[in-house]
Amino acid sequence: MKQFISANDVTNINALVSKALAYKANPFLDKQLGANKRIGLLFLNPSLRTRLSTQVAAQNLGMEPIVFNVDKEGWALEFTEGAIMNGTTVEHIKDAAPILGNYFDILCIRTFPGLVNQQDDYSEKIINQFIQYAGVPVVSLESATLHPLQSLTDIITIQESIALNSALQSKRPKVVLTWAPHIKSIPQCVSNSFSQWMNAWGEADFVITHPVGYELSTEFTKGAIIAHQQDEALKDADFVYVKNWSSYEQYGQVLCKDEQWMLNNKKLALTNDAKVMHCLPVRRNVELSDEILDGPNSLVTKQASNRVWAAQSVLASILEAQKK
Amino acid sequence: MKQFISANDVTNINALVSKALAYKANPFLDKQLGANKRIGLLFLNPSLRTRLSTQVAAQNLGMEPIVFNVDKEGWALEFTEGAIMNGTTVEHIKDAAPILGNYFDILCIRTFPGLVNQQDDYSEKIINQFIQYAGVPVVSLESATLHPLQSLTDIITIQESIALNSALQSKRPKVVLTWAPHIKSIPQCVSNSFSQWMNAWGEADFVITHPVGYELSTEFTKGAIIAHQQDEALKDADFVYVKNWSSYEQYGQVLCKDEQWMLNNKKLALTNDAKVMHCLPVRRNVELSDEILDGPNSLVTKQASNRVWAAQSVLASILEAQKK
Amino acid sequence: MKQFISANDVTNINALVSKALAYKANPFLDKQLGANKRIGLLFLNPSLRTRLSTQVAAQNLGMEPIVFNVDKEGWALEFTEGAIMNGTTVEHIKDAAPILGNYFDILCIRTFPGLVNQQDDYSEKIINQFIQYAGVPVVSLESATLHPLQSLTDIITIQESIALNSALQSKRPKVVLTWAPHIKSIPQCVSNSFSQWMNAWGEADFVITHPVGYELSTEFTKGAIIAHQQDEALKDADFVYVKNWSSYEQYGQVLCKDEQWMLNNKKLALTNDAKVMHCLPVRRNVELSDEILDGPNSLVTKQASNRVWAAQSVLASILEAQKK
Repeated sequence: MKQFISANDVTNINALVSKALAYKANPFLDKQLGANKRIGLLFLNPSLRTRLSTQVAAQNLGMEPIVFNVDKEGWALEFTEGAIMNGTTVEHIKDAAPILGNYFDILCIRTFPGLVNQQDDYSEKIINQFIQYAGVPVVSLESATLHPLQSLTDIITIQESIALNSALQSKRPKVVLTWAPHIKSIPQCVSNSFSQWMNAWGEADFVITHPVGYELSTEFTKGAIIAHQQDEALKDADFVYVKNWSSYEQYGQVLCKDEQWMLNNKKLALTNDAKVMHCLPVRRNVELSDEILDGPNSLVTKQASNRVWAAQSVLASILEAQKK
Repeated sequence: MKQFISANDVTNINALVSKALAYKANPFLDKQLGANKRIGLLFLNPSLRTRLSTQVAAQNLGMEPIVFNVDKEGWALEFTEGAIMNGTTVEHIKDAAPILGNYFDILCIRTFPGLVNQQDDYSEKIINQFIQYAGVPVVSLESATLHPLQSLTDIITIQESIALNSALQSKRPKVVLTWAPHIKSIPQCVSNSFSQWMNAWGEADFVITHPVGYELSTEFTKGAIIAHQQDEALKDADFVYVKNWSSYEQYGQVLCKDEQWMLNNKKLALTNDAKVMHCLPVRRNVELSDEILDGPNSLVTKQASNRVWAAQSVLASILEAQKK
Repeated sequence: MKQFISANDVTNINALVSKALAYKANPFLDKQLGANKRIGLLFLNPSLRTRLSTQVAAQNLGMEPIVFNVDKEGWALEFTEGAIMNGTTVEHIKDAAPILGNYFDILCIRTFPGLVNQQDDYSEKIINQFIQYAGVPVVSLESATLHPLQSLTDIITIQESIALNSALQSKRPKVVLTWAPHIKSIPQCVSNSFSQWMNAWGEADFVITHPVGYELSTEFTKGAIIAHQQDEALKDADFVYVKNWSSYEQYGQVLCKDEQWMLNNKKLALTNDAKVMHCLPVRRNVELSDEILDGPNSLVTKQASNRVWAAQSVLASILEAQKK
């Protein structure tokens, strides 16, 4: 693997999942693989799970990760070609990225969307300029439109659940991504990315349900069934992925706060005793009810714990490609 | 040892002290003990000595500690059961803690009291919820009411001083904890904790002196002599521990700023050439005079340096218990 | 080497450069040298390249560096002897530094000038108090008046360029330090330090050019030719070091914003096809034009990349001296 920005960078999702599960069974299987390899984790935005799980994954592979919070420890970067830098930006990505590429063998980057200018965000200009100028493999720790480490984790968790439930092994599982209410304007990354990975994986019937106006970019959802009636969508679901996102078309806006969209046990009864997923952090009793999160169907802790193995699988694949 | 939250978690204080002194003599004695063990240091509040000494201690045991400043790098956590999270908190401790427990083999946490609601602070709801939900050993890096790594360090330092002074070996030492002035409202943690440990250790005559209104919780001071006349209390003292704290009864309030309570050489003359202790940071010439801090009786640098060995002794004891 | 604060701490610059180039050829040559050695990196001010390159250098030598952002993770330090600390400072350097010296075998410190009080800044009171009280070797990661790791890197980069260009090997190279415009008040550190190192190195003709009023302290420039006509100074230059600084005499002030001082290809044509240097971060099209930075004569990426080898050479020299 040469980089990890989206599902398109992965030739075999199931192989990547198997690798992750091998690390889960034996975290120090490849403790020598990363020896003397330098990995930098750059955060232009905050992170808890992604940061810690990637650090642990890198340590499991024998690397000493270096974390740098650009937003807090550094200074504002400039991303516009030809800019006359007499304002607030202190350093151009064209100058910063090649140096980071010299310091590190792998560069991991988190950068959120502004949620103001759709075209800007969806051009992925920030992570793309890191890729263009760094000269080393770049791993997305969530970018303006996608969150591939989360999606890989999600598929690992779905496969683990299927392996534990023989009834699910003889059928094609139904996976529903459902919009949930939230009080703030939230990126589309996790939902875009989950859609892209479900389509690329291809081993489930995939349905997306959301209020009118919350259609995601068809670039990522193509192939998925879109439904505006949540109750209909939930019928016979084996997995329900709960997530809020702001509108893609009326970009970044919150069009609906309807509490009826929050998943609870009554709605769960419509499903095939579905397992419930969420990427965290979750606003309890706004996005998802206590009864679900504290109940037996929740996969959220397992899901977040699997972040380590997803990251370790990706980093190992990149290290292996570098050795060739 | 299964956790390290208070003196109650320690069955044999002297054994823990001996272990610490063995590490002081040979820091890399157990360099293999922590191999492949993951330790997370979570700070909900700032730290200098505690953070650095615990990091060094973990490295000495072969671990690569991961530091996370929740207050600066993360987001606000929710600690109320059943909360409808439509406000400023982004993630519930019930969701965050189990995942941290999955990422790490030992979880170290610092959390300060609010000093507004006595009952809230003294319920230790924050660190207790980490313990409840993390599922791995939790080490306090100072909590709302106690600072056990500091107190262990204090007893290490007292024992070291006694070992260097034959006159102190043939008697029962007198240890005085004296309140000192400060300009701000300061937690009772260090004083509560020192009292608790002195009582649990039981090898000294322990006196606490403070202005009226500064009585500490008897939960921690029981057994100690309380005196309101500092000069009386200091008589024949072998060790004087200087510390400010805000009122426990008029919770969090500053009732007294009387400069007469600041220790200086004139007061020191009342003692048995006592060694002077402070946990740092210290406000010079407010809490404690330059003449004391720069003089021959000060133990403060030695005390702070011993923080490494205290932390190493605790972490090693937990690692050893995990291997059983 | 006992410390690394200025060129005066180095007995043989060329030997230090050779050592750095040996590490560049083989980063893990001395992977055992730093085993079980503790290194602390303290930042009183922000840093990108210096922090990351020093961390990587320390790791290459087998150390696990610990970073502490005093300005963000800690609290305000007091540097005035005898201060009554009833204000905003929380801890005196006399108390903090000895403890850091106990925790670490090498202490690296970054501290910027205030640019308000020339005497204060040029007394280097902050780094000098760390040196006085820490009791272990101190490495400057940029101080109030100097930036020696940058200057060592600069000489490494100049020597590398000479080694690649036979025409430069038969002559004494001409090196020009030219002032450049900037929108803010910038320290004199990099320019002072480069001047000091060029003079100490002694293997080039060294010219400094700047507008009237921007004279640097003669403590550092002595021996250098000072010119106020940039075009004259640039003639036949083999290396041009571009840098802004605020006035030393009218301390910290911005006296000139004349865009004519920005280097571009037209000015470069006056030189002997000079290589162009800058320490970064650089304000593009304010300090230095895109056409230079993106052109074939720019050394800036190579220069910044060499920061790792400069730091590694310095740290190794200190570790070797400690072993004696």
